[in-house]
Amino acid sequence: MVQFSPAHLDATFAALSDATRRGVLEQLGRADASITELADKFHMTPTGMKKHVGVLEQAGLVTTQKVGRVRTCKLGLSRLADETAWIEEYRRLWDSRFDALDQIVEELKQRKTLDGRRQTE
Amino acid sequence: MVQFSPAHLDATFAALSDATRRGVLEQLGRADASITELADKFHMTPTGMKKHVGVLEQAGLVTTQKVGRVRTCKLGLSRLADETAWIEEYRRLWDSRFDALDQIVEELKQRKTLDGRRQTE
Repeated sequence: MVQFSPAHLDATFAALSDATRRGVLEQLGRADASITELADKFHMTPTGMKKHVGVLEQAGLVTTQKVGRVRTCKLGLSRLADETAWIEEYRRLWDSRFDALDQIVEELKQRKTLDGRRQTE
Repeated sequence: MVQFSPAHLDATFAALSDATRRGVLEQLGRADASITELADKFHMTPTGMKKHVGVLEQAGLVTTQKVGRVRTCKLGLSRLADETAWIEEYRRLWDSRFDALDQIVEELKQRKTLDGRRQTE
C-alpha cells in the first residue's frame, strides 16, 4: 500500500465516525454556518456543537473564523484525497482476494462436474 | 446526500481510525492470518489484537473462524461501498463549494483590473 501519514488518517476517519459530524460537513458543503446555526439545526447545545466542530477542525475538514461574537464555520482544505486513496487501494486488495476465491470455487465446481460425469460413466 | 445507515458508517469509519486496524486489513488483503500471527506482526499481545479484530468484525470488515485453538481471520464482505459513496458525494459538494469560491475570486480580480484601468485613464 502507498504510505499515508497514519496520524492524519486516524484523525480524519475518527472525525467521520459520527453522524452529526458528517451532517455538519454536508451542511457546510451547501453554505457556511455559525456554531449557533449548526447547533439549532442538529438540535444540540452550542457547547456540544463546538466540540464536534473542534474535532472536524483538528482533522482539517473545517476552518472557523470568529468575527465579534459569531464563529463562522466553512469547509476546510481537505478534500479527503488520502482517505479516498487508502480506501481505493483496500478495494483493489479486496477484489483480488475475492477474485482468487471465485477462481477456487470455480475450480471446485468443475472438479465436481467431472467427478459426477465419471460416476455416471 | 444519499441516505446511508448512520450506525453502519459510524462503525466502519471508527474501525478505520486506527493505524493497526488498517494494517490488519492490508495484511488480510494479502493472506488470511490467525490472531497470534497478527499479534506477532504488529508487536502486540494476542489479547490486544483480539480487541482490534473484534472492532473490525463488528464493522463487517473481518470475519473469524475458530478451529481447535486457532482463530483464523479473513476479510469480511464489506467492500466499503457505502463509505466510498459517502466520500464521493462529499467531494462533489466540496468541489462545487470551491468552484463557487474560485468564481468569486475571479470576478473580484476582473473588477480590480477594471478599477486599475479606470484609475490610469
